[in-house]
Amino acid sequence: MIDEVLSFLDSNGERALADLKKIAGIPSIAAKNEGIEECSEMVLGMLEDINLEAALHATSGSPVVTGLYDAGASRTLMFYNHYDVQPAEPLELWKSPPFEPDERDGRIYGRGVADNKGDLVTRIWAIKAFLETGKKIPVNVKFVVEGEEEIGSVNLQDFTSKNEEFLKADGGIWEFGGSDYDGVQQAWLGLKGIFYVQLEVEKLSRNVHSSMGGILPSAPQKLVDALNSLKGPDNQILIDGFYDGIQPLSEAEWEAIDKIDLHEEDMKEEYGISQFQNGLTGRNLKEAVYGAPSSSICGLTSGYQGEGSMTVLPGNASAKVDFRLVENMNPLDVREKLRKHLDAHGFTDVKIAWSEGYAAAKTPIDHPFVDVVRRANDKVFGDLRVHPTSSGSGPLYLFKDHVPMVSVGVGDVESRSHSPNESIKLENFFKGMDRIALIVDEMGRW
Amino acid sequence: MIDEVLSFLDSNGERALADLKKIAGIPSIAAKNEGIEECSEMVLGMLEDINLEAALHATSGSPVVTGLYDAGASRTLMFYNHYDVQPAEPLELWKSPPFEPDERDGRIYGRGVADNKGDLVTRIWAIKAFLETGKKIPVNVKFVVEGEEEIGSVNLQDFTSKNEEFLKADGGIWEFGGSDYDGVQQAWLGLKGIFYVQLEVEKLSRNVHSSMGGILPSAPQKLVDALNSLKGPDNQILIDGFYDGIQPLSEAEWEAIDKIDLHEEDMKEEYGISQFQNGLTGRNLKEAVYGAPSSSICGLTSGYQGEGSMTVLPGNASAKVDFRLVENMNPLDVREKLRKHLDAHGFTDVKIAWSEGYAAAKTPIDHPFVDVVRRANDKVFGDLRVHPTSSGSGPLYLFKDHVPMVSVGVGDVESRSHSPNESIKLENFFKGMDRIALIVDEMGRW
Repeated sequence: MIDEVLSFLDSNGERALADLKKIAGIPSIAAKNEGIEECSEMVLGMLEDINLEAALHATSGSPVVTGLYDAGASRTLMFYNHYDVQPAEPLELWKSPPFEPDERDGRIYGRGVADNKGDLVTRIWAIKAFLETGKKIPVNVKFVVEGEEEIGSVNLQDFTSKNEEFLKADGGIWEFGGSDYDGVQQAWLGLKGIFYVQLEVEKLSRNVHSSMGGILPSAPQKLVDALNSLKGPDNQILIDGFYDGIQPLSEAEWEAIDKIDLHEEDMKEEYGISQFQNGLTGRNLKEAVYGAPSSSICGLTSGYQGEGSMTVLPGNASAKVDFRLVENMNPLDVREKLRKHLDAHGFTDVKIAWSEGYAAAKTPIDHPFVDVVRRANDKVFGDLRVHPTSSGSGPLYLFKDHVPMVSVGVGDVESRSHSPNESIKLENFFKGMDRIALIVDEMGRW
Repeated sequence: MIDEVLSFLDSNGERALADLKKIAGIPSIAAKNEGIEECSEMVLGMLEDINLEAALHATSGSPVVTGLYDAGASRTLMFYNHYDVQPAEPLELWKSPPFEPDERDGRIYGRGVADNKGDLVTRIWAIKAFLETGKKIPVNVKFVVEGEEEIGSVNLQDFTSKNEEFLKADGGIWEFGGSDYDGVQQAWLGLKGIFYVQLEVEKLSRNVHSSMGGILPSAPQKLVDALNSLKGPDNQILIDGFYDGIQPLSEAEWEAIDKIDLHEEDMKEEYGISQFQNGLTGRNLKEAVYGAPSSSICGLTSGYQGEGSMTVLPGNASAKVDFRLVENMNPLDVREKLRKHLDAHGFTDVKIAWSEGYAAAKTPIDHPFVDVVRRANDKVFGDLRVHPTSSGSGPLYLFKDHVPMVSVGVGDVESRSHSPNESIKLENFFKGMDRIALIVDEMGRW
């Protein structure tokens, strides 16, 4: 029976790809509040098209789109995806326009094809395949497709808190995934939390000639000094109490992690580095990836940034900083500790203009749903490399009490999510649909 | 005789103002290499129009425009001006377009009207007044009008080294000046030197998802740490040997300085501050203004700078930093010391992408030409407040062995040079022409 479904997908890959091109053509950038309505309506239409009971749920921000297929089955499978994308800047680095998806060399390029519209389309088409071949779907199916993942899912809780019943499922497929440097498919069982903050300093009522720099206070210097105070030379975060309550990785997790090859040399080549931060390698590198929080500057702005020189003392300066959190860390708590740190170190004038974030979450490494995904993956791709957590973040914490999530998807190590020339392999896209169909099938026999 | 000249200027203020509007309408931005040719040709035409022997001198950058009137007189008066302007960014803060000069409330607004096209036009029109009234100009007159002052006069030396004879004069009027908070006119006898540098850090071959921030090196963090290392909390510059060889202000200078009221409260109000850097006040503030070098960040750039959040680990980061120098400091020497500092503090990967600058220079406070200017000023404006040096910079060091320069001009404390809504008072513009005509007259009787 599943063979007919797979055969349908095999014959209809180009139709699915056309859907991806259509949805990836919409610049649905939550950070700029662009294209959100149009894209949410398109997702709604796609879910209705596969006969799901679909709905748009208003939030204070982007609407959440849901779909439900009640098969009267004992098991329920959930999909979590998002229809928003990162901004495409810097635009000049794209080889083809970011919102005109372009096929070349066995890949498709465009903002959002990897993160996360490619995965969304494979999941919709896997269900469509059952429908169009007239095969009974052996599980109940739920879709939750949000529109603010790239800005920290700031309003998803509006939806989840009102729809706890809908969140209940026996297993869920999280948004992303893909093949490793050696081609082996990977699954992630958890996500780090995040605390993202905009720091702002205003010292003068306007920009002033920089000849006044000897006597007027400097906003960019203050910002630089504050950012410097946050981290030691070993990249340890110097905020008092920042690491409080963090649990070390468990033995079961280390057992899984020890089997993972991080492909250090491949990563070095990919990122153009001669060594990792602080010379991290081996188990230390793995601990940083799977078990430790971190902090990075995502943006710096002040004064004149054009060509050549402009002798200006900027009146203000700002920085965007993200903190990645592990379990038992709370973004609001980090915000408080950051504020205390700034105040205690003479940076009362460094304002937290806004912040957002959420906690970390993990699905237990020995959960039976992990094996459902593994069996399905085996039939399409072969081996599955299981990571206890991703170093990435997402709103998994809103789901973790209701459904065990496993993240697999159609990306690969060249996908460049969040960067110019984002892309996926067409092969992964087509096989990704098969894997979802097989997860549905395996879950019916769980 | 001079009365007729002044009367002509009184009747023809609007014609002079029309010339200012015309030249200030050209966005001659050396930093962007825009409008330079057009503006240099216009200056050439204006000098030819007052019967000067005018010439365009090619350099590796913007041409230098000169004008010569040989009266066969014993004294020679020089004018130094520049026809380039600062970039107008941020454009959205201008109340009228920066390159469409706009008269309102007794002022004229536009990029360059204060710095330095207003002064250039007053000087040309003062000479024109002698010409049009048929009065003999009692001194030889020289104009040097360069086109790269706002980018550190990087190629002016191409001109000055080949034209040392032309630089000889008995007195010169430097580019700028204006009235103080209390309306009293000011003159400056010196300029600080400047060393302006672009620092760049590249740690990754591209921008990467910031979830990798726990293991990849961070370009913005490295830049921030390097900038932090340059200055102590008291704003002392921590570069080894930076202060070597600096002479304290002389007794004669302190005598003049002690008479100067810096109008601290007015300045605080103007810049929107509750106190100066490190609480400087009184003689300490004056020492910082007249006798000390300084350093300021003029620009910071890295990663995402738009609205909202983008979770990116930027592959590179850059900063523009200027150092203001006093006499006996050499920009090349500062560059070397900065490089040594960076290398010694673990910042070998912070590159000096480019730099430019020049040394400080001062005209002796007791030079007789200072009194020529004072007498002329007295007849138009009244008192003249003489500063031993400006905290600003300029290529005075190229002239100082050939001509004693005094800087007076048509600005005021609301002129906002280098900022949006740059402007001058119309009254200062009109009276400024008279003052120049009277300097010519006084110099003829020196």
